[in-house]
Amino acid sequence: MALRQAVRSVARPLAFPSSSTSALLSSSLRRSYATPPVVEEVPKVVVAAPTPLSSSNKFRNFRQTFGRVTLGVFVTAGGGFLLATYLAGSPGEQLPQDPTKKNVVVLGSGWGATAFLKALDTEEYNVTVISPHNYFLYTPLLPSVTVGTLEGRSIIQPTRFITRHKKRKVNVIEAEAKEVDPVNKTVKFVDTSDVVGVVTEKTIPYDYLVYAVGCENQTFGMAGVPKYACFLKELADADKVRTKLMDCIESAAFPGQTESEIDRLMHMVVVGGGPTGVEYAGELHDFLIEDLKKWYPEVADRLRITLVEALPNVLPMFSKKLIEYTESTFSDNKINLMTKTMVKEVNEKHIVVQDANKEIKEIPYGLLVWATGNTTRNITRNLMSKLAEVQTARRGLSVDDNFELLGGPGIFAIGDNAATKYAPTAQVAAQQGTYLAKTLKQLSKRDIAKEELDALRLTQGVAPEAVETAVKKLNKASKIRPFHYSHQGSMAYIGSDKAIADLPIFGSDNLTSVGGQATYWFWRSAYVSNLYSLRNRTLVMADWAKVKVFGRDVSRE
Amino acid sequence: MALRQAVRSVARPLAFPSSSTSALLSSSLRRSYATPPVVEEVPKVVVAAPTPLSSSNKFRNFRQTFGRVTLGVFVTAGGGFLLATYLAGSPGEQLPQDPTKKNVVVLGSGWGATAFLKALDTEEYNVTVISPHNYFLYTPLLPSVTVGTLEGRSIIQPTRFITRHKKRKVNVIEAEAKEVDPVNKTVKFVDTSDVVGVVTEKTIPYDYLVYAVGCENQTFGMAGVPKYACFLKELADADKVRTKLMDCIESAAFPGQTESEIDRLMHMVVVGGGPTGVEYAGELHDFLIEDLKKWYPEVADRLRITLVEALPNVLPMFSKKLIEYTESTFSDNKINLMTKTMVKEVNEKHIVVQDANKEIKEIPYGLLVWATGNTTRNITRNLMSKLAEVQTARRGLSVDDNFELLGGPGIFAIGDNAATKYAPTAQVAAQQGTYLAKTLKQLSKRDIAKEELDALRLTQGVAPEAVETAVKKLNKASKIRPFHYSHQGSMAYIGSDKAIADLPIFGSDNLTSVGGQATYWFWRSAYVSNLYSLRNRTLVMADWAKVKVFGRDVSRE
Repeated sequence: MALRQAVRSVARPLAFPSSSTSALLSSSLRRSYATPPVVEEVPKVVVAAPTPLSSSNKFRNFRQTFGRVTLGVFVTAGGGFLLATYLAGSPGEQLPQDPTKKNVVVLGSGWGATAFLKALDTEEYNVTVISPHNYFLYTPLLPSVTVGTLEGRSIIQPTRFITRHKKRKVNVIEAEAKEVDPVNKTVKFVDTSDVVGVVTEKTIPYDYLVYAVGCENQTFGMAGVPKYACFLKELADADKVRTKLMDCIESAAFPGQTESEIDRLMHMVVVGGGPTGVEYAGELHDFLIEDLKKWYPEVADRLRITLVEALPNVLPMFSKKLIEYTESTFSDNKINLMTKTMVKEVNEKHIVVQDANKEIKEIPYGLLVWATGNTTRNITRNLMSKLAEVQTARRGLSVDDNFELLGGPGIFAIGDNAATKYAPTAQVAAQQGTYLAKTLKQLSKRDIAKEELDALRLTQGVAPEAVETAVKKLNKASKIRPFHYSHQGSMAYIGSDKAIADLPIFGSDNLTSVGGQATYWFWRSAYVSNLYSLRNRTLVMADWAKVKVFGRDVSRE
Repeated sequence: MALRQAVRSVARPLAFPSSSTSALLSSSLRRSYATPPVVEEVPKVVVAAPTPLSSSNKFRNFRQTFGRVTLGVFVTAGGGFLLATYLAGSPGEQLPQDPTKKNVVVLGSGWGATAFLKALDTEEYNVTVISPHNYFLYTPLLPSVTVGTLEGRSIIQPTRFITRHKKRKVNVIEAEAKEVDPVNKTVKFVDTSDVVGVVTEKTIPYDYLVYAVGCENQTFGMAGVPKYACFLKELADADKVRTKLMDCIESAAFPGQTESEIDRLMHMVVVGGGPTGVEYAGELHDFLIEDLKKWYPEVADRLRITLVEALPNVLPMFSKKLIEYTESTFSDNKINLMTKTMVKEVNEKHIVVQDANKEIKEIPYGLLVWATGNTTRNITRNLMSKLAEVQTARRGLSVDDNFELLGGPGIFAIGDNAATKYAPTAQVAAQQGTYLAKTLKQLSKRDIAKEELDALRLTQGVAPEAVETAVKKLNKASKIRPFHYSHQGSMAYIGSDKAIADLPIFGSDNLTSVGGQATYWFWRSAYVSNLYSLRNRTLVMADWAKVKVFGRDVSRE
């Protein structure tokens, strides 16, 4: 109510006191102006019956109504925006951690861990988050950072911006988890950053461990990949790609550069035809058309983009129609698509591939982006080896229907590091995180019900009905619903203001495939509304506006 | 005129067709609406004579006038903004370089070089710019980048955004100049970036060399400085400081960190009490108060800031009153000021100083920012050694009144690398750059006059009067006005929304000293209006708004 009044009082000096749309607003406004003028009568006539009115009067009525509604919307939206940002930026006092409560340790700060943290009720738990990054990264927009469509900081959110709003204090530790001991229920972590104190290693106990460390880049054992290629997994990767891209272009523009070397430096090769590789190729194309041609006319036309994929098609998770649409858009955009092509070797200035005709070829490159998917992290392999009898899946940790680790009671594995029937996507990890937060809430209810029952049983002279009720309560609290995944659809940006999407509009089994410029606007709004915070939404939209108005920055930094 | 009409036609459907402020606008508007309504009469009465009018009518008139003026201002400003950004983002065709014209080579892309490039008429010259950075950095705002008040990319501008708008094509080469040969008039440069082609080195001839490579950081020969300290000269320096600062804080928050180590990690030491060091200390204080206390309540109170200065005062270039104001503000902000203190040794985790009482002390630090000023670059020392007889100044290159190098005809040294009577400031370098562009214009006029005279003298049967006129023209064109420096004042931000300024309001010899929050707003507007492009101005203001609304990002990246 206080907000409503505040909004109204702001609206007052600016609003136009005639005509009648929002009854509440206009009556409150009317009261504040003595002796309403002649015009006041006109709108009443309009509302009562549409009798003859001069067109200019009609127009004025429309205008005033429109103006008032617009003003109302703006003031309300603006006030709501400021209130929301004020609240987000003003974390209050938190309860201290309570030694009598169970300890929940969260490993990671990606999709699974962050969704879990956002949804978790910290009332019954002491929570500790351990991650080498003290922020959450909105990975689907990472390809946009590689060419400056978005700035990196617009798509990250410090983890403390979430945890400081929790009821109970949450420890956030910037460190890399190194080892989990599923028997003694402890986790060891190390400060691996550049600046460290005298204490750099610590082992802490957990009652529940939320294991969401994700995966690392799949290199297929090729030593050249980590040495010469750029990945697209972390924010630093995107910045590195951006720097290297501009570096290639500047070196190609170096006076007296040889023709073949210009061709090499201006050849950007992407390995992996999944959404990341495809979106990167699309963004690169936009950068070429919208910016490079303006500022580097001498070399822009030499830029070539090649996408290498081992499978017969890019984007295998999309419908056939959209795969074809993507491939024809790439062909229009002169992005060279090499499918059924296996990378055999990665060298400093060229890769060796076996193409669709089984021929071995050398492909010189300036920039190599490697986006071939995931593999298990060391810490995960280590944990699996400790539970070798039950942990036999190659893809990651085997879990039950509630994501509890087989052989590791109290450990819940979600996201890419779990070997489930679901795809390794952000969407799946986020839904699992939210589900797990609910599960932990349920587990705390079960614990409380159990304590109550134990207390009753130890008390003498309790009516059997009371015990029975407590047993029922415990049984009810012990029932944990299994996870249900609700597919919201798949989307990808493919360049030149076009996107593709498979959407579950008519039920999740019947995906509707759409592609083109309208889909691009849908893609943008879906991504913006999926961003975790108002802050990120605003920053991303501001970046898009910035690029629309000023173009992309071509500084190499 | 086209723009004016465009603005008017945009204004039309939105404007309110009654009352009369801007006669032009309202008459043009009135024509478009048939049968003006009753209200039309009212404002005419107001303008003719202020006869009794109900207060609500008066208010409505004011409102409509106000609305129309506001709308007019917004539409004009908006249209102007879009037009300006459109033009800035749409470089046209350029004349090719012309082998018959003289070659101007510019070394650097800082204040001097960029001001020169902006002001230069490329009609008569083939211009080549050589700089290790392909952008201009607005250095006065660099301290704001270290804590995230501004994003780095908001204060840089690609050099090509300037050169692509020149009449004649300008070569921009991202490379480091390594050697100048003043006898053969050549300059050698090397591609020192991470990605290089087969050609990495080149030597090109010049007719005129604009030597504006600047200086490097003064380390007083202490090996520990480049190894352990952070500088504040390049954009990468500011990013490094930001990362390291967050790293110190995260390591201090690491569980079980020892008390003395927390004290060390949370001790931020700044060496150098010039504007850079003072502004950095101020920004750090703001970051502590406005952000760290919110998100890192467990360690924020442990943060200490110490500023070490060898002289008896900070900011020696400011008036005594402002020095005192700064020192008392620092004292209020709990910034520890150690004046008359010499740094003797820089180690990984502590510095050794000799304090005002000649006592030797060890000061442990987490982050060390080194801002002690400039020293000559290698390439400059090398050039001086080649002209050892005339180049004897220790501070840099000796030049004549037109900045032409003593012993190096055709070389013009401007900015920090020149040993002039002026302070090594951005302001001086920029004015010298603009002056030099005018000088080169004058030199091309002289060359043309000389050619004309030579041609006349070779022609038979020319009237002696014609030759005399040509001689006069040459003499006039040969007169180059000396440089005149116009001091615009000195400013510095000192933290907690306070700035100081010595301004030449009553003539440049009588500086007016002002300090406080109003000066802070003056500081902001002066810096924004001094930014070279509308793009940078918009980005900087957007960053300020972003931080005001959302606070600073505390992600370590």
